[in-house]
Amino acid sequence: MAGFQAPALARLIDEFNKLPGIGTKTAQRLAYYVLSMPNDDAESLAKAITDAHRSIHKCRKCCNLTDDEFCPICKSKNRDKSIVCVVEDPKDVAAFEKTQEYSAMYHVLHGVISPLRGMGPNDISIKELIDHVREDNVQEVIMATNATAEGEATAVYISRLLKPLGVKVTRLAYGIPVGGDLEYADEVTLARALEGRCEL
Amino acid sequence: MAGFQAPALARLIDEFNKLPGIGTKTAQRLAYYVLSMPNDDAESLAKAITDAHRSIHKCRKCCNLTDDEFCPICKSKNRDKSIVCVVEDPKDVAAFEKTQEYSAMYHVLHGVISPLRGMGPNDISIKELIDHVREDNVQEVIMATNATAEGEATAVYISRLLKPLGVKVTRLAYGIPVGGDLEYADEVTLARALEGRCEL
Repeated sequence: MAGFQAPALARLIDEFNKLPGIGTKTAQRLAYYVLSMPNDDAESLAKAITDAHRSIHKCRKCCNLTDDEFCPICKSKNRDKSIVCVVEDPKDVAAFEKTQEYSAMYHVLHGVISPLRGMGPNDISIKELIDHVREDNVQEVIMATNATAEGEATAVYISRLLKPLGVKVTRLAYGIPVGGDLEYADEVTLARALEGRCEL
Repeated sequence: MAGFQAPALARLIDEFNKLPGIGTKTAQRLAYYVLSMPNDDAESLAKAITDAHRSIHKCRKCCNLTDDEFCPICKSKNRDKSIVCVVEDPKDVAAFEKTQEYSAMYHVLHGVISPLRGMGPNDISIKELIDHVREDNVQEVIMATNATAEGEATAVYISRLLKPLGVKVTRLAYGIPVGGDLEYADEVTLARALEGRCEL
């Protein structure tokens, strides 16, 4: 393939192809699209990549990504500092913020404990979580790791470390997704939904 | 949403979101992925974008994208200069090259005649095609525009301009895609396949 393509184009396709979920076809489409963009737009895309990469790092308290010492949520005065929601990934913070139902703090683990992928407790920000809980005198930690085997194991591991500190540790509810059809719910979800049933 | 995100991150998500086929979710995933990349990789992605954009333009003969005056296919000595395959888009050249069944020339129109989208005959490289045919004394032009109404209309329009030059104008065969199931072929394709049947 590469022989008839300009090297700069082939390299751009190759770079896009390295991104997650971008196959050869999509990489090609994106590359040709970039070439068709006005010069300023292409420069601004390239600049956004380098800028974001240079300026963004972890918040000193909650480990979410930020361009400052502390992230906007940790700096905010309108947030309840006594509750911390522990998530695997910065994307999960965005998901919770979209609900507009949560106005306390977060802590981002940046992964889960996964022996298969060589991730131990020291590879995710558990130490920072304990510091966070101690410093802010947190009353409740909501474990909101993913509902996978690794996510659950990580939640159990962390809850064992937190309980001696006298903090209440809770877990997100399991159940049928809203709008979901019972027919298509898997048996484990259904069993959990039954288990967690509540009075109307 | 934007309030809790670092501006550099929000801008990167926004830039990815502008690309074709990239929605908000994918843009977010790509942006977080870029942040997790080693510094060198992120720089190299950004550089590939600016480099490609700066160095790539249309080949003087066939209008395919290249970083030189003429593209590698036009410069090649092993290509049959007497046949030109006319395509809408540089991506179509890539598709033909992958077949490894075609060893003549191409001409890229960069679009089709589409009054609805305000594209007239002067907005695509028809003039360059006629120059190309005249200069190289081309014997056959294969119209390989897409099998859409606009693609076909463009093919007919171009063939009328080319015939007075004494050049043979052909069109790609229509029919059932290889590996395709007759049951799922639409009636127009099926009718065209019947019409174009050949002896075994």
